[in-house]
Amino acid sequence: MFEAAELGRTVSKEEYRSEVAGLRWQLLDAQRQLRTAPFPLIVVFGGVDGAGKSETVQLLNEWMDPRWIVTRAFDEPSEEESERPPHWRFWRDLPARGQIGLFLSSWYSAPILERVHRRTGSAELDAAARRISTFERVLADDGAVILKFWMHLSKSAQKRRLTELEADPLTRWRVAKRQWKDWKLYERFTAAAERMISQTSTASAPWVIVEGADERYRSLVVGTTIRDALYKAFAALEESQSARNSLETSTVGGAPSARTLTRRKRGPTVLARLDMSRTIPDGKFDRLLEKWQGRLNRLQREALRRRVSTILVFEGWDAAGKGGAIRRVTSALDLRECRVIPFAAPTDEERAHHYLWRFWRHLGRAGRVTIYDRSWYGRVLVERIEGFAAEPEWRRAFAEITEFEEQLIDHGIVLVKFWLHITPAEQLKRFEERAKSPYKSWKLGDDDWRNREKWEEYERAVDEMVARTSTRRAPWTLVPSNDKNFARIEILRTACKALDDRLRRKG
Amino acid sequence: MFEAAELGRTVSKEEYRSEVAGLRWQLLDAQRQLRTAPFPLIVVFGGVDGAGKSETVQLLNEWMDPRWIVTRAFDEPSEEESERPPHWRFWRDLPARGQIGLFLSSWYSAPILERVHRRTGSAELDAAARRISTFERVLADDGAVILKFWMHLSKSAQKRRLTELEADPLTRWRVAKRQWKDWKLYERFTAAAERMISQTSTASAPWVIVEGADERYRSLVVGTTIRDALYKAFAALEESQSARNSLETSTVGGAPSARTLTRRKRGPTVLARLDMSRTIPDGKFDRLLEKWQGRLNRLQREALRRRVSTILVFEGWDAAGKGGAIRRVTSALDLRECRVIPFAAPTDEERAHHYLWRFWRHLGRAGRVTIYDRSWYGRVLVERIEGFAAEPEWRRAFAEITEFEEQLIDHGIVLVKFWLHITPAEQLKRFEERAKSPYKSWKLGDDDWRNREKWEEYERAVDEMVARTSTRRAPWTLVPSNDKNFARIEILRTACKALDDRLRRKG
Repeated sequence: MFEAAELGRTVSKEEYRSEVAGLRWQLLDAQRQLRTAPFPLIVVFGGVDGAGKSETVQLLNEWMDPRWIVTRAFDEPSEEESERPPHWRFWRDLPARGQIGLFLSSWYSAPILERVHRRTGSAELDAAARRISTFERVLADDGAVILKFWMHLSKSAQKRRLTELEADPLTRWRVAKRQWKDWKLYERFTAAAERMISQTSTASAPWVIVEGADERYRSLVVGTTIRDALYKAFAALEESQSARNSLETSTVGGAPSARTLTRRKRGPTVLARLDMSRTIPDGKFDRLLEKWQGRLNRLQREALRRRVSTILVFEGWDAAGKGGAIRRVTSALDLRECRVIPFAAPTDEERAHHYLWRFWRHLGRAGRVTIYDRSWYGRVLVERIEGFAAEPEWRRAFAEITEFEEQLIDHGIVLVKFWLHITPAEQLKRFEERAKSPYKSWKLGDDDWRNREKWEEYERAVDEMVARTSTRRAPWTLVPSNDKNFARIEILRTACKALDDRLRRKG
Repeated sequence: MFEAAELGRTVSKEEYRSEVAGLRWQLLDAQRQLRTAPFPLIVVFGGVDGAGKSETVQLLNEWMDPRWIVTRAFDEPSEEESERPPHWRFWRDLPARGQIGLFLSSWYSAPILERVHRRTGSAELDAAARRISTFERVLADDGAVILKFWMHLSKSAQKRRLTELEADPLTRWRVAKRQWKDWKLYERFTAAAERMISQTSTASAPWVIVEGADERYRSLVVGTTIRDALYKAFAALEESQSARNSLETSTVGGAPSARTLTRRKRGPTVLARLDMSRTIPDGKFDRLLEKWQGRLNRLQREALRRRVSTILVFEGWDAAGKGGAIRRVTSALDLRECRVIPFAAPTDEERAHHYLWRFWRHLGRAGRVTIYDRSWYGRVLVERIEGFAAEPEWRRAFAEITEFEEQLIDHGIVLVKFWLHITPAEQLKRFEERAKSPYKSWKLGDDDWRNREKWEEYERAVDEMVARTSTRRAPWTLVPSNDKNFARIEILRTACKALDDRLRRKG
């Protein structure tokens, strides 16, 4: 794989100078255009020590405006980082739309180094590669331009380079014992890298292998590749915009989401099969509430001690009783170790990132309970129905969500997802009660009535959501909620069972 | 101080029930009104173990909607927290406007406990009290409603309470050895608390001492106090809005900021006294650049090793060369350990907090360099001149900023503040160059020309800013920047000197 990067290619001083003058302006111009574009540029650097990774990143920061560049490297995870799934810190530091992220070390570093030092086998390397491919596809699907440069040196060239750096008093600090130790593992390192690169070089996130021996050559390769990728992305953007404009003028009526839904199967939905007659009388409810709240409290304390985190997701119809149910849960919990996050419209910082970003950012520390009042499922519910997400966007969200939840569960987090279901008649009754009550009328808005008119569309969307995202490891719990007592106990019981199952396992 | 909280006051079951029914609705109503109000509610709880702090917080979460309540407690600082000034984590977790923050432990906990355990003396307790008072005044000045409840029990009542909790299998976990150890230090604890409370009970952030023995009594006291404070704040808001409306209709022309400025002294400003003739020729510049960049690079590595953080603040006229100067600094630094944060208009999350919040949130980890491209000084510059901040707001900002910077410096951070000064003629020349250049014209906007017309106003504002915020520990460096070479070297030299001075000190 790396043979083509050992050809000894060089660029003369004159050629370099004449090329760079134009390139710098083009890069600055591309960066300026990018600032108002609806996507970020993500550039990952990998490769052997001494092949020019940090020099190149330094140079890009000089050629462009460093104020709109986010340069990051990931060392050993900090305490707070290691309490979340491994990708949490990468998500946190992703550049916003319009920005450039340069990653001097990245999601590739740990899997490759683990393999080099024989702490993992090939199977684990391959699993990491699959996860990374998915991660990058998720970002690319959202529009991100992703480039990955592997800076290569032959073993002998690396030796020469390290010796050079060591000889210069200004750069001597860069060569410690570790660098020479790594050099001795050169073969292992390139083998692991080859395997990783071949599995993660995709059309939307390609690897470019760069011969690192000649500074001028490698700088030009990286600079022009970035320039070309950005201009290509701008051109594609323009094309898709003009295509959309001509499409809009030629189509007549009919929102695509509605059409799609009409085409779908018309059988009973998973919600239609729920037994909505279940109730719990008040006297029995009080006893059960005390029992399950007490149990949840004990389980939470045990989970905190064992550093097992919990995420409870609440979705459901308007007026299905999410707020009341959440209150019955929180009143069982030690609130110091628990956070309730209500999700309404995204803030502008959130809008400047991938839609999953705002859910990643709220993941709690080890052992804590986080309650998501509405969640990432908005993508395939309200965003789908109201057309805030285009059809390809919400369609691919099913896989994106499953992958996201996999990462939570792999990290040992207990994930419980509730859909609070009520019948249309019950909803109407509750709306009317709210309208009449001076204390509750503020809870009822025009949106609620509008959503109610789209009941069938929503029900089909919920049906598909459950079909696509209720997995063995992350199942949905559909809660019949016409009777509030029943719903509340069901929720407490389910949360307890999930926590209990998890705590019976080791680790 | 606590005698009045040992009177054995109780509330009967009947009285409680009838009171609570109304109180709950009022609290819910107040919470609903708060959600669109331009301020947060901050409630701090302190007191002895067993006096009902956590029960009360639990109850407030039941009475109101927990989704709009942020409940927090602060344990030992995490690794990332202890790498920033102590108040960083409090700022991070402050509720946004419209939200309620309940703090089960807070900025009071550490100073009181440190004193109880004799790790600090009275002088340090008093210093902490002063810092806290300032912190709370800063928040209250911004509109925050702050309430602080001290939950009290007499020594014997606490003993009874702890014994009770221990006897109940459901609450036994709450009483560990630590609680009994603390009980033995009861006198010390109340003495430290008394001293702290008496120094921090202010009109805008009063302490309410609550007799904690009777659950019903203490719940009503806390609930009604919160209700009353919120209603009072809503009334004050309404009044100030109608006052403003009538003011607006009665005044004719003349922005207050302009008038204020005319009233100010007309002597030469601190900028007028700068020697603007200083230059460095290109050949010499190259040598000096290499020298100072090399030195800065070595100092950064030493600072990282010693975990000394650096903050460089860049302010200056449009076209004064901030971008170019920052580039000369970053190209000397290891970008993995450095962040450049450009501050333009605040995001909506930032707008929902105190104006200092967004600067706190970007403080870097230990040993890192953070470059603020524009900063908190916007409050007394652009926000002042353009009227985004009212006169009382920017006036008190001088003290708020000084206090903020004190905290940075107390934490051992190196803080260097640059004002890049150019003459109006030089600015005009640069604007015209930009307008002509196809590569630079995008850098020039209508704003730039508008700001230029207000040169004198800005110059007076800079003058006052320097007079008020250039302190011995956090001096301003005014950089004559008509000659870019000179400015860049001056900036590198000053940063090096500040870092060098700091690294010569121990710690």
